[in-house]
Amino acid sequence: MTPASWTLRCSACDTAAERDRASVCGACGQPLFARYAPVPKGTPLADRWDAWRYAPFMPLEVGEVPVSLGEGLTPMIESPALAAATGVRRLWIKDESQNPTVSFKARGMSAAVTRAKAQGYPGLVVPTAGNAGAALAAYGAAAGLPVRVFAPRTTPRPILDTIEALGATLVRIEGHIGDAGKLAIAYAAESGYFNVSTLREPYRVEGMKTMGFEMAEQLGWRLPDALVYPTGGGEGTIGIWKAINELMAGGWLPEGAKQPRYVVAQAAGCAPIARAFAAHEDRATPWVDPVTYASGLRVPSPLGDRLLLRVLRETNGIADTASEEAIRDWTLRLATATGIDAAPEGGCALSVLHDAVTAGTLSADAEVVVFNTGSGASYRA
Amino acid sequence: MTPASWTLRCSACDTAAERDRASVCGACGQPLFARYAPVPKGTPLADRWDAWRYAPFMPLEVGEVPVSLGEGLTPMIESPALAAATGVRRLWIKDESQNPTVSFKARGMSAAVTRAKAQGYPGLVVPTAGNAGAALAAYGAAAGLPVRVFAPRTTPRPILDTIEALGATLVRIEGHIGDAGKLAIAYAAESGYFNVSTLREPYRVEGMKTMGFEMAEQLGWRLPDALVYPTGGGEGTIGIWKAINELMAGGWLPEGAKQPRYVVAQAAGCAPIARAFAAHEDRATPWVDPVTYASGLRVPSPLGDRLLLRVLRETNGIADTASEEAIRDWTLRLATATGIDAAPEGGCALSVLHDAVTAGTLSADAEVVVFNTGSGASYRA
Ligand SMILES: Cc1ncc(COP(=O)(O)O)c(C=O)c1O
Ligand SMILES: Cc1ncc(COP(=O)(O)O)c(C=O)c1O
Repeated sequence: MTPASWTLRCSACDTAAERDRASVCGACGQPLFARYAPVPKGTPLADRWDAWRYAPFMPLEVGEVPVSLGEGLTPMIESPALAAATGVRRLWIKDESQNPTVSFKARGMSAAVTRAKAQGYPGLVVPTAGNAGAALAAYGAAAGLPVRVFAPRTTPRPILDTIEALGATLVRIEGHIGDAGKLAIAYAAESGYFNVSTLREPYRVEGMKTMGFEMAEQLGWRLPDALVYPTGGGEGTIGIWKAINELMAGGWLPEGAKQPRYVVAQAAGCAPIARAFAAHEDRATPWVDPVTYASGLRVPSPLGDRLLLRVLRETNGIADTASEEAIRDWTLRLATATGIDAAPEGGCALSVLHDAVTAGTLSADAEVVVFNTGSGASYRA
Repeated sequence: MTPASWTLRCSACDTAAERDRASVCGACGQPLFARYAPVPKGTPLADRWDAWRYAPFMPLEVGEVPVSLGEGLTPMIESPALAAATGVRRLWIKDESQNPTVSFKARGMSAAVTRAKAQGYPGLVVPTAGNAGAALAAYGAAAGLPVRVFAPRTTPRPILDTIEALGATLVRIEGHIGDAGKLAIAYAAESGYFNVSTLREPYRVEGMKTMGFEMAEQLGWRLPDALVYPTGGGEGTIGIWKAINELMAGGWLPEGAKQPRYVVAQAAGCAPIARAFAAHEDRATPWVDPVTYASGLRVPSPLGDRLLLRVLRETNGIADTASEEAIRDWTLRLATATGIDAAPEGGCALSVLHDAVTAGTLSADAEVVVFNTGSGASYRA
């Protein structure tokens, strides 16, 4: 595999940044993005059974071995039963529970920890709504770097237990991920650790791209009409969108292909993006008192708000919410209809899809990919 | 993919059996095996990201779509740290936690439920030490068939919860998997359900073969010197051995390749195979009062005893045990050294490996594959 070479530029104002800058844009404070020359169609992919198959699109130095635990290459399972239940023509579940530490967060941490290790950081720190902390604990152990995780006391216990089982230092805090974020920034400043907070460094989102590459390849290098992502901090959604842009730039998709419609699914108890999109804002205001059982969606003030709202505008997207009851109901349907041990975030995505079709916002003729981002087992405390 | 055609014959006395016989040999009561013409080296494998990549070696009718949830193609992670800790030259962990319902049991259930569905059974029943029940619940849901699981009350709670979350009927019983087995036989007789009990039908072990195919392919179509498997009912161990035999018959491995040494790892609190092997028996006597935290190893009287003892004899194998304390200790080392959320069964395997090298039974020059068969999360109740 011949890895790409890349530069870092601000996702908002395009200002260039140092490539080992583990932070946001110095000029405007928005997230940095890695930028590559287009990877032309036909560039050989890596012969690996994991997400690093897409190494030519990834921030990897020549000859560098990524910190990997077999993340990615997750199945995409078609479900006629769920297509019927939600009212669309065809529906696939991309099952991200089959990752190390059972969530899609593994992909981002594999990419970010690879860069943190290469840059010689002494340790890793992260604020988390849950699964990101478990994933960082795993990749820190794989890289031989100490990990400190700041997580709300209300995070589901199985996730907290995984963080500790993998040898990380867990700090349970009062408050939500925003509060944890402040503590992580302070700890990073004092310790010199790499702060792997969502979109506060440019590399987690690079790992998230691999969901987009896989989705396109699994459909035979074409795109669905819409995709539904349970969105909290936004790195999953933004990573997929970035991947599809990079595939289009390289000519991997059919002539005239365009981005799918992005459906951002949030919990009614914490929906800053859905609220801002409905109000035609280009940024979100913090959600006061975020509450939902789907703890990955408990992100009241995501740094990726402007990017998410841009993705929604550019793709004629949809952003909506599910109640706690609807989340539980659709999580159960997802599990029993497919055999996938669905996370509540996956149930939230299905519920929002169903409502969009019922309301006529999304066509009943659509082919849709729904992301089950984690495992139900992580929430059965 | 061109699937193989197969016959069923007794693994012990070679008597032929009906292909849809979901049971043991009518002549001698030993497990039935599927038999194929050799699959020649170079036969195209299926272009899939799951264990059905090896479809030419599998019991699948032409044009048949397997019941699949993306099982298999799990990573094999090299760990120099664990090689040093156990005293061998090179060591890889095959991480089976990255399967649907987080254990290797998914592979067997995918194959068995595919056949049960094709044969038109009205439902599925299984006795389980834990993970097999969760896997069957998933594949039953995927196939649209009802599932009944008989499990000891002492099975770790997260596993029991998964069984129920996937819509199966769970019957908690007093006693161990042997007692559950009797109830499953009775229930199958009365309901007409397919009894998916370990080695009591011929197809789960076919799914287990895929671990052997993957291991060989991941090493570049060669074999390690030894492999260590945490053995309870024996289908994992026997499946790998059958796969390697089939690869050798088809010429997939280098001239002169021979089976690795099989290291059967058991818990000191339930070690019928290790005891029988030490006593040079060709069958095992039931272990009275089986007790171990590694619940997958709590199988006091496996139907595969003769096959396991034959594998051990034929491969100059090793069978030994780990104490509860050693299991906990090595599970922690596995997790923190690699970032893999190790199951206690994986820890048991490492402990037995370490002791074998220390005792000089296994060469310090060996290249070894160790199977982490499940996820630590399933045991943190
Ligand atoms: C299971 C699960 N789903 C969805 C999300 C939200 O993902 P993102 O932060 O990429 O929007 C999270 C975040 O923690 C999660 O753990
Ligand atoms: C995690 C785990 N490891 C090992 C085993 C034993 O495997 P086998 O029955 O194939 O010997 C089991 C069986 O339940 C298991 O769940």
